Amino acid sequence: MKVNYKKDLIMGKSTIREVLKHRTNILKKIFTCSKDDSLIKDILKKNIRIEYLSKNKLEHLVGSVSHQSFVGEIEKRKYLDIKECKNFKTIVMLDNICDPHNMGAILRAAECFKVDCVVFSKNRGVDITPTVSKVSCGASELVSLVKISNLQDGISKFKKMGFTILAASNEEKSMDITKMDFFEKFVVILGSEERGIKSLYKKLADFLVKIPLLGKIDSLNVSQAAAVILYFLNNRPC
Amino acid sequence: MKVNYKKDLIMGKSTIREVLKHRTNILKKIFTCSKDDSLIKDILKKNIRIEYLSKNKLEHLVGSVSHQSFVGEIEKRKYLDIKECKNFKTIVMLDNICDPHNMGAILRAAECFKVDCVVFSKNRGVDITPTVSKVSCGASELVSLVKISNLQDGISKFKKMGFTILAASNEEKSMDITKMDFFEKFVVILGSEERGIKSLYKKLADFLVKIPLLGKIDSLNVSQAAAVILYFLNNRPC
Repeated sequence: MKVNYKKDLIMGKSTIREVLKHRTNILKKIFTCSKDDSLIKDILKKNIRIEYLSKNKLEHLVGSVSHQSFVGEIEKRKYLDIKECKNFKTIVMLDNICDPHNMGAILRAAECFKVDCVVFSKNRGVDITPTVSKVSCGASELVSLVKISNLQDGISKFKKMGFTILAASNEEKSMDITKMDFFEKFVVILGSEERGIKSLYKKLADFLVKIPLLGKIDSLNVSQAAAVILYFLNNRPC
Repeated sequence: MKVNYKKDLIMGKSTIREVLKHRTNILKKIFTCSKDDSLIKDILKKNIRIEYLSKNKLEHLVGSVSHQSFVGEIEKRKYLDIKECKNFKTIVMLDNICDPHNMGAILRAAECFKVDCVVFSKNRGVDITPTVSKVSCGASELVSLVKISNLQDGISKFKKMGFTILAASNEEKSMDITKMDFFEKFVVILGSEERGIKSLYKKLADFLVKIPLLGKIDSLNVSQAAAVILYFLNNRPC
């Protein structure tokens, strides 16, 4: 479905609820085809403008049928520059995550485990679409984002700033993430399901890391792996 | 899209690869519109019959465009009876998981963390569709399944067999899953994103359990929660 709107949009009730609760200031307008949802009262209480649109028009706005009758227009998303990350501790970098469900779920885990920012490529993988925002449950607007054209260059910059680079890759030589030492500041790179992390990025990493699995299938879905890895990296003893 | 085929079907290249590798005997026939994929050689090596169909016909067969040119017909799925679970240690029970992506990803985590079986309701939530099989990466055919009409009755039977019942629910009173004692045999119940676990099932549970989160959003996606919880329940010291 083609999207015919140029502004930054979010969609879905939970997404709008979370953004309304934690970042009201970025919400410019809500489009809805619903007249009697409790969410409408909450939107009006915060003095956000509501514009009523048909279900069909909402679908065209976001290029999806999954809007749950609510679409939000937000201020143009601001992306951090890598330099602004120098005092951060926990960074997730995404290489070529193409599935909006995985992208959204990774952003949600990043928010739940208080990652300082998520870095992703302008050219490789999905952008922050309304579907991503919905799956992320609003995390797309709660987590700081860095969008760069060259991940290799990004990795080098993070290394210079003192970050340990971890690449998630289920290989025999990879270290067990649940048994690793504490890192004061680190970047964890997650790659696409189909191709994994680009081999050049794996070479640049300080460690390859994996989750110990017991079954026949040798990897979790990337968003599940993100949740397990982020739990461990954020909860190890200092 | 309407499915017009009554047999049990799986789809997607990784799914078919995993089933071909670990449960060749259940594969009756492969439908494909591809002529030159390396997967075809592997299928022929195992003496599985191939039937060539147009892309359009494959779509109609599985009611989805995500078949990646490969659909497999498998033997009619066999479901275990609860009685057959009595010597099991680790069971996942699903209450009303309606999203096939979540269902598939939970099955994948169940396989990766060697859960003995997954119990789900005949009436509440999604069935094992071709989409579920694809997202599960073939785990739908590698994990034992129990399909029952009454989860309440199921919980009572598991309790009588000596299982500790854990219900995943992010409430203040819930226990931190990462700090819990070892259970010799347990059932962990996971509920839908929208409504969580039915309150009756939570009352029947021995413990409510949660993952400690640090951010503003108060829950992970259910399949991510499944991965983190299953990791902890399967890796605690005895």
